[in-house]
This record gives sequence, structure tokens and C-alpha cells, in this order.
Amino acid sequence: MKTLHLIKIGGQLIEEEKALSELLKHFAALDGPKLIVHGGGRRATQLCQQLNIPSQMIEGRRVTDAATLEVVAMVYAGLVNKTIVSQLQAQQCNALGLSGADLNLLRAHKREAGTLDYGFAGDIDEVNAVALCQLLQSGILPVCCAITHDGQGQLLNTNADSIATALAKALAPFYQVRLFYCFEHRGVLKDVKDPDSHIAQLSKERYQQYRQGGQIAGGMIPKLDNAFDALENQVAEVYIGHPQSLLTSD
Amino acid sequence: MKTLHLIKIGGQLIEEEKALSELLKHFAALDGPKLIVHGGGRRATQLCQQLNIPSQMIEGRRVTDAATLEVVAMVYAGLVNKTIVSQLQAQQCNALGLSGADLNLLRAHKREAGTLDYGFAGDIDEVNAVALCQLLQSGILPVCCAITHDGQGQLLNTNADSIATALAKALAPFYQVRLFYCFEHRGVLKDVKDPDSHIAQLSKERYQQYRQGGQIAGGMIPKLDNAFDALENQVAEVYIGHPQSLLTSD
Repeated sequence: MKTLHLIKIGGQLIEEEKALSELLKHFAALDGPKLIVHGGGRRATQLCQQLNIPSQMIEGRRVTDAATLEVVAMVYAGLVNKTIVSQLQAQQCNALGLSGADLNLLRAHKREAGTLDYGFAGDIDEVNAVALCQLLQSGILPVCCAITHDGQGQLLNTNADSIATALAKALAPFYQVRLFYCFEHRGVLKDVKDPDSHIAQLSKERYQQYRQGGQIAGGMIPKLDNAFDALENQVAEVYIGHPQSLLTSD
Repeated sequence: MKTLHLIKIGGQLIEEEKALSELLKHFAALDGPKLIVHGGGRRATQLCQQLNIPSQMIEGRRVTDAATLEVVAMVYAGLVNKTIVSQLQAQQCNALGLSGADLNLLRAHKREAGTLDYGFAGDIDEVNAVALCQLLQSGILPVCCAITHDGQGQLLNTNADSIATALAKALAPFYQVRLFYCFEHRGVLKDVKDPDSHIAQLSKERYQQYRQGGQIAGGMIPKLDNAFDALENQVAEVYIGHPQSLLTSD
């Protein structure tokens, strides 16, 4: 089985032009099939502020009213996606930007969460793995943003980590998938205030201990839930950390 | 040769949810290969206003500074493109949203126009007709927004009529192309204040007379220049008008 590099980029990385461009250069130079998933959350928060749309997060997930959905569609599928695609094309990488609506790549449903109302937030039902494999086999690099659809004409906002996980799981029967969740830190931190406290390797048992102890909290919880979900579903390897250390690891 | 329907939608059509949805339904029902090109200009103007970015037009073309480029990338490639794609998917149409950077579809260069500075406005150099034909042969409906790139990592803002024309010309050797420029009027108007004064058929000679006489002016000039350019380059038929009258014509 061929190795597929699947990288999820988010956080400050998306904001910092130079860091993003360096990352894309390194990633473009990797041999074999590869795929990018990205968010763009802070930029969306910023645009919401400029447009006086209140931003609300519940456990690292954005509450998406109609106005916020328009903002995330604009920022994720428009600005961030096309910036990444054009930079990859400049590296002779045949990138293709995608939302979950394109080619019916990611079908989702509006989240029902009891008393919590996440608005137009989508939980993934189905990945079009056939379409993805065809693209990868044609030498195309899919660049997937954190927007899905419900198949009835409704766009939905979906956590980029969840998308990366769903794609990695869907491609695991066809490729040996190396999944990288990239952000500005060196890894999962034992002490969120100490950037050097990253954990080199984390078992599920230790994760649950850290979570109960409160050392791992907030946005790291869905990220790690995603990571272990991937590992339990045929994904070969999962890394969380700064791209510099990740992409040079073998 | 197979007939290809290529429709460009712009103006108020993009703004009016119901009109757009009707148009997409009719278009989705057409047999055979098809392609959509869209702008989204008024929505971009509106967002520029909300963000206090001044909008400036020269002869129907937007002057694009860095902040405006971000707005058009967001509105065209993000909001409008994904709205159209998700609605087509709901019609069982396998739509794929594209900018000119995706698959290196439309390579352009920054316009040099003597003393006028259009900023990040792109004039098209090359269409990737091979990639487009592969998509069309796979039963995919490409939905192309009015963003191109220079191949060096720079996105550029390109007039949607010019994109429709360039795509129609590039596909003319492979398909019998019927090119529709759609907007809210019934056609080219002899008197811009009289919506019933549309011209049923317009020759290039008559167009030049009307242009010199001032009856045809502003944004209609580049549109008609594009239309005649297409006809002079193997495009089989060109229509300008309201989609209702266009899509029912045979």
C-alpha cells in the first residue's frame, strides 16, 4: 500500500504568511499522494468581529448562526483555501480546493445536541472516498476546507480536525495513512503555559488520565478524541504538533 | 460534436435566492455537459462597504487593491461558489467549484494598463482545457468563479464575462458551445431605462453603431466585446439576457 500524507493545518499557522508558505513548500516536496485539510478559525473570528457578528464557542466548536455560516464559507472556502491552492500551484503541485459540497465529498447533518444549539454545525455522515481516490490517483492534491453540506442545499460548518479524521479513516483501506494535526505548538502540552512540556508519545490511557486531571482541556479534547478515533480505525500513524518537527520525522 | 451549455450568471441573479435557485434547477435539468461561470460583484461591493474598503470601477472593471482582493476571493470563491455548488448537488448534479488556481485552470497576469492601475486584476493568458475536458467527460459540472492566478502564488480578480469567454473559446474545439451571459434584463437594451427595448439579434456592425451613438455603454461594452470575441473564435452560439428566456430557447 502506498503511503498517503494527510496534514491538517490550523491555528496561528494559517495566519502567519511566512510560516504557512514554509510549511506548504516542505509539504509540496514530499513524494507520493497527499492531502491537506484546513480551518481558518481565527481569521473567521476576526471577520465576525469586524462585521459585529458575535462569536460563541462550545468545547472548541463554533456556534454557527446564518451570518457566521456566511463568514466561515467566505474565509475557509474562499480566502484561506484559494491562498493555499495558489501557493501550492506555484510549487508545481496540482492542488484542487474542495469543500464537502464539491463532488459531494462530505455529507453531514445538522448537529442535534440536546439543549445546546450549535446552529449550522455539521456532523459528518459520509465521505466520498471513490472521488478522493480518483483525484489522488490523477496526481491531484486535494485541499479540503472545513465546510460540509447536507445534500439538500445547506452548507454546514464542520470542525477541521473532524474532517481530517473522517478523510483519514475513509482512505485507510486504500492507503497507509500518516495523519498530521499541525498547529503552532510542539505537541500536546502537559502544561499549557509551558511550550516545552510537550508529550512525546501519548497512549489512550494516559490521555484519559490527563483529561480527568485537567491538564488536557478545551480544544485539545476533540483533537485527541479525533486522533484516537483515527488510530482505532486503520489509520497507520497520527502526529500532533508543529509542522517543522512533524514533516522532518520519519 | 456534443453540445456544451456554458452559462455565466451575474448581477442581481446572484443576490436573489429564489431566482438563483430556479435558474440552477432549470440548468441542472439540461442534458449533456455543462459549465457555470459566476461573479458576485454586488455582494463584494456590499462587503467592501461593511469593511470600509472603498470600491472603485473603471469601465465595468473593479480596481482591486489587496483588501479588495481578499473580499472578492471570499465572496466569489467562498460564499457564492459554495452556495451554487451545494444547490446543484441537491439537484443530483455533480458540481465542483473552481477558481482559476484550482488545477491551474486559468493562468493570468496582472493587468498593465498604462497610467490606470487596476491593482490585482488579472488578464487571462491560458486555459487548462485538458483538465476541463476530463472533468466534463467524468460527468462533473465545473462551477468557475471570477478568480484567477498568476502561477507564482498570486490570486487575481478577473471579470467573469472574460472568464466565460475564455472557457468557451478553449472548449470550442471539443464541443459545440452554446454560451449564455445571464443577467436580470431581457437582453441588450437599446434604451437602458426601458426594459422592453431589448435587441433580438445584434450584429457586430450594429453594435459598433450603438456604441458610438452612446446607446450601449458602461458594463455592456466589455460584455459585448467578449460575446463577439467568442463568436469569432469557433463558439457556436452566444446569448445575452434573462435566463428564463434563454434556457427555454432552442
